[in-house]
Amino acid sequence: MKRNAFYAQSGGVTSVINATAASLILTAKKYPKIIGKVYAGKNGIIGALREELIDTSKESVSSIKNLMEIPGGAFGSCRYKLKNYDEDSSEYERLIEVFKAHNIGYFFYNGGNDSADTAFKISKLGAKVGYDIKCIAIPKTVDNDLALTDCCPGFGSVAKYIATSTQEASLDLKSMAESSTKVFILEVMGRHAGWIAAAGGLAKNEVTNAPHIILFPEINFNQKSFLAKVKKSVAEDGYCVVVASEGIKNAKGKFLTESDTTDSFGHAQLGGVAPYLSNLVTKNLKLKTHWAVPDYLQRSARHLSSKTDLLQAQAVGVKAVEFAVKGMNSVMPIIVRGKTKNYSWKIEAAPLSKIANVEKKLPKSFITKDGYGITKKAIDYLRPLIKGEAEISYKDGIPKIGSLKLIEVRKKLKRWI
Amino acid sequence: MKRNAFYAQSGGVTSVINATAASLILTAKKYPKIIGKVYAGKNGIIGALREELIDTSKESVSSIKNLMEIPGGAFGSCRYKLKNYDEDSSEYERLIEVFKAHNIGYFFYNGGNDSADTAFKISKLGAKVGYDIKCIAIPKTVDNDLALTDCCPGFGSVAKYIATSTQEASLDLKSMAESSTKVFILEVMGRHAGWIAAAGGLAKNEVTNAPHIILFPEINFNQKSFLAKVKKSVAEDGYCVVVASEGIKNAKGKFLTESDTTDSFGHAQLGGVAPYLSNLVTKNLKLKTHWAVPDYLQRSARHLSSKTDLLQAQAVGVKAVEFAVKGMNSVMPIIVRGKTKNYSWKIEAAPLSKIANVEKKLPKSFITKDGYGITKKAIDYLRPLIKGEAEISYKDGIPKIGSLKLIEVRKKLKRWI
Repeated sequence: MKRNAFYAQSGGVTSVINATAASLILTAKKYPKIIGKVYAGKNGIIGALREELIDTSKESVSSIKNLMEIPGGAFGSCRYKLKNYDEDSSEYERLIEVFKAHNIGYFFYNGGNDSADTAFKISKLGAKVGYDIKCIAIPKTVDNDLALTDCCPGFGSVAKYIATSTQEASLDLKSMAESSTKVFILEVMGRHAGWIAAAGGLAKNEVTNAPHIILFPEINFNQKSFLAKVKKSVAEDGYCVVVASEGIKNAKGKFLTESDTTDSFGHAQLGGVAPYLSNLVTKNLKLKTHWAVPDYLQRSARHLSSKTDLLQAQAVGVKAVEFAVKGMNSVMPIIVRGKTKNYSWKIEAAPLSKIANVEKKLPKSFITKDGYGITKKAIDYLRPLIKGEAEISYKDGIPKIGSLKLIEVRKKLKRWI
Repeated sequence: MKRNAFYAQSGGVTSVINATAASLILTAKKYPKIIGKVYAGKNGIIGALREELIDTSKESVSSIKNLMEIPGGAFGSCRYKLKNYDEDSSEYERLIEVFKAHNIGYFFYNGGNDSADTAFKISKLGAKVGYDIKCIAIPKTVDNDLALTDCCPGFGSVAKYIATSTQEASLDLKSMAESSTKVFILEVMGRHAGWIAAAGGLAKNEVTNAPHIILFPEINFNQKSFLAKVKKSVAEDGYCVVVASEGIKNAKGKFLTESDTTDSFGHAQLGGVAPYLSNLVTKNLKLKTHWAVPDYLQRSARHLSSKTDLLQAQAVGVKAVEFAVKGMNSVMPIIVRGKTKNYSWKIEAAPLSKIANVEKKLPKSFITKDGYGITKKAIDYLRPLIKGEAEISYKDGIPKIGSLKLIEVRKKLKRWI
């Protein structure tokens, strides 16, 4: 029996999440006897709650294919966290109601461990109330912190951006250091895990010897030791490059930029970690610094996406449909690394119960003993993920972006409040 | 009579200044009867003062060609400003002394209007003391503020980076705006002129309608009008993208981040324009913001260099040598735009006397009446400069960089203090 599918993007977007969406939509078209239409949630799961469903069948195949090259979430995403199911199951029940109204038998949720948890709960509720729904969570997060999967689509591209930017800025700094800036600090994303910061370490080469210091959220920040290391690097190489995770904490477990301020509101807004560290270095070592905070630029840089990452983002979209068509439920297509010396990977199914709400931190064995660098083990893990340059078309000097019609399905239910 | 050449990089580096250096060195090899060796100043003009001259003839042709793809200044640059000639001519005399000692008859100075002034003064001093030296200043500055030349090598690539990054981050913001961040602020370089900020306007498209606001150093910042424009953009599109020059000033002509602070030292270090504006928006409009400061990343992003910019950077290097060989003195190879509808350009010689110390600001006609956008005239000027993608080789997922031997010539003079 033919049933429709619902797809939603969740949480912070990436430069390749639309490639997952496009692959999923195109693959679903191969099973016209099993999957009817693919509806996309307008602004993620909120779109399902509000019954705002975008009918992707109204889009041309070429505009869906164009999505492969467009960063961000084309249907909209959200950071909306559903209420605790045990305390208030009304939102989950509303989702089932909307799914029923539109004959939705397949729920694809493209996000992190939060989304895996939501998909997991809906599959349980479906079983409980006797509503047949196959729930597939699809991995997506620049934070690379999902359990079971070897890596997360979105991460490889940010890693490539940070490694490239670190190398480029280090060459700039080296040119100027004799008479000008001596310390450069790059603040990168990753509030809870140091995967992105670690990727900065891939920039290390014999020309610049940078980065000299990586600051991970997994290692408590020690001001004295940090300043000593900056001083030593400047003495040895003439300059010092620091890659700092936005999530670094002091010995008391507080975020650096939360501590040491009088006006927490004002300063929390003003200060990032990079300007904070820059200030420390200037005050204590009297060295000229520069700092950068690429913020959204790092996770939306489709112009510099990793080919490996793009292929994996596409593959999880394809496999999600294939798993659903096979009748699998409550699973995630995960990336499994081959045991061969040359990097290889394949997609397998893993149970959501083991992924939901679990956070994978950077292993201790990836961080050097002094806490400021990455080990060979980390390099061996990271390097394949940034390999290859994903194709992209330019128009008038900037990446070409198409547009979608984004036509919504007629509502059948009462408004959700 | 064969004489040697001296080449130095000056001021902030760019993603294509090494392409100018490489083209100059390779072109000089075509005139072996006129030009002997090309010496490069170690860390710019400081290298001449200290008699630290890198012998580029010791480098292989392939490693010189590699320079075409490497950002930063391969021989080192500096922000060293020579003393005022009328008050103390000792530094200029030292330069002539070093040039004499190494039979240098050609001085190529690759920088901005400051460097044009230095080259101009040395050519005058040479004539005065009867030392034959051809002085050619070669344009380079991401600020695009040199007189006479249509544009400056280095600018087109930053413009391409900012336009691309603005577009990418806007797509990201649009995805999230319904439930999360509503305002994104991108701080760009350009302390005195708004050329780079203007380039953000090239990102405008029908999908995002961003950027909504560009803040130029040429227009005094008006907090009330700015906040009203942010509010209106969020009301209309659901979000607001701001591209802000680091050099914006208040009505009193003071840099924004200098004003309105109690602890000027601490805040000058802590605050950039972007976090300052972000704080304003949060405080006054209660909207969630994100901000980015790419800093060095924008001017060293060789992975995203404009092909047009690269070709122009190469051409000025070639022409500098050709002008010198023809016996021209005290000139700069400038870029002249063709009058045809389709963009064309050629290199001509312009007198340093008309370039030295002159700063070209963004014309009023390039800024929309409300002061927050760019006009069609600006777009017609800017667009050709970012066109084309400069080739680059990757290794292990990041741009490949070669290394130079950087062998110094044996000193002949006393140490300079």
